[in-house]
Amino acid sequence: MKRTPFSRWPCSVARTVDILGDWWTPLVLREAFYGVRRFDDFQSALGIGRNVLTQRLGRLVEEGILERKQYSEHPPRSEYRLTEKGRDFWPVLAAMMAWGDRWLDGGKGAPVVLHHSTCDHDTEAVVVCSHCGEPLGIRDVRAALGPGYPERLRDRALATGRFDDAGAGSEL
Amino acid sequence: MKRTPFSRWPCSVARTVDILGDWWTPLVLREAFYGVRRFDDFQSALGIGRNVLTQRLGRLVEEGILERKQYSEHPPRSEYRLTEKGRDFWPVLAAMMAWGDRWLDGGKGAPVVLHHSTCDHDTEAVVVCSHCGEPLGIRDVRAALGPGYPERLRDRALATGRFDDAGAGSEL
Repeated sequence: MKRTPFSRWPCSVARTVDILGDWWTPLVLREAFYGVRRFDDFQSALGIGRNVLTQRLGRLVEEGILERKQYSEHPPRSEYRLTEKGRDFWPVLAAMMAWGDRWLDGGKGAPVVLHHSTCDHDTEAVVVCSHCGEPLGIRDVRAALGPGYPERLRDRALATGRFDDAGAGSEL
Repeated sequence: MKRTPFSRWPCSVARTVDILGDWWTPLVLREAFYGVRRFDDFQSALGIGRNVLTQRLGRLVEEGILERKQYSEHPPRSEYRLTEKGRDFWPVLAAMMAWGDRWLDGGKGAPVVLHHSTCDHDTEAVVVCSHCGEPLGIRDVRAALGPGYPERLRDRALATGRFDDAGAGSEL
């Protein structure tokens, strides 16, 4: 199946899904967050085909989300570690997990529970506003074109009525 | 390309990615969050093939994320509206968008900026702990098997060293 490339769309959701590429990738990242570093451990944890795994790990290295480090010379062996960019993706998976826990648990409760060592309590990810700290709900938010929206596409986007025009004068 | 079904894996990330099914789906949802309701509007906003769009909308209705409502009898016309489950997915996209804004803006700034009407400021999604409200970082969190993890798989999962055993006595 040929995929449409989303990497140049003026939308951070589209660009992000373009990197993830297919649905194995978030699960590969999930394993990386659980501490998995070696090819064979990714492979056995996910039951993923070796060629698919090679390709997904390669793309994540290319995008700077994982880095490959050789940990043995004889025989040559590498491991894959999360970069800062990669670690920063974890909250997205945590938000996805919280939604799945609420809506897809089949009445059995969460399969996996997260414990926050900072406050020593079990936790769920909550997505809040960076300014006021209140939970962000879809009904409280308006989207506006930002500074990174291409000039040549602005008029067309504004005409759809979906966006305000924040432009370069945005407060962010 | 045949997909591996993740819907029964004991992992809310896997179950969520199974529903999304492919990467068009988050973008269809993005449009729904922007207020798009009609087939032709989804189609023209995304430039997606009509058969692919029909299939994605159908799956989202099946999963209770969108509901289909007839708004005209002659001619018969329907629109797709987000359910409560659907609206609750929005924070996941907001978290994805914030990550993309930080790491994939190509130095040009965010393509789209969100404005939080509640506090009247531009906002970025931040993922925090439901208990203490502090940002959730991967290094501050431990995963434990929860009540919804299948009994028959617990020992194997614990043996990997990736999980604590919170079991039914979890505080959550």
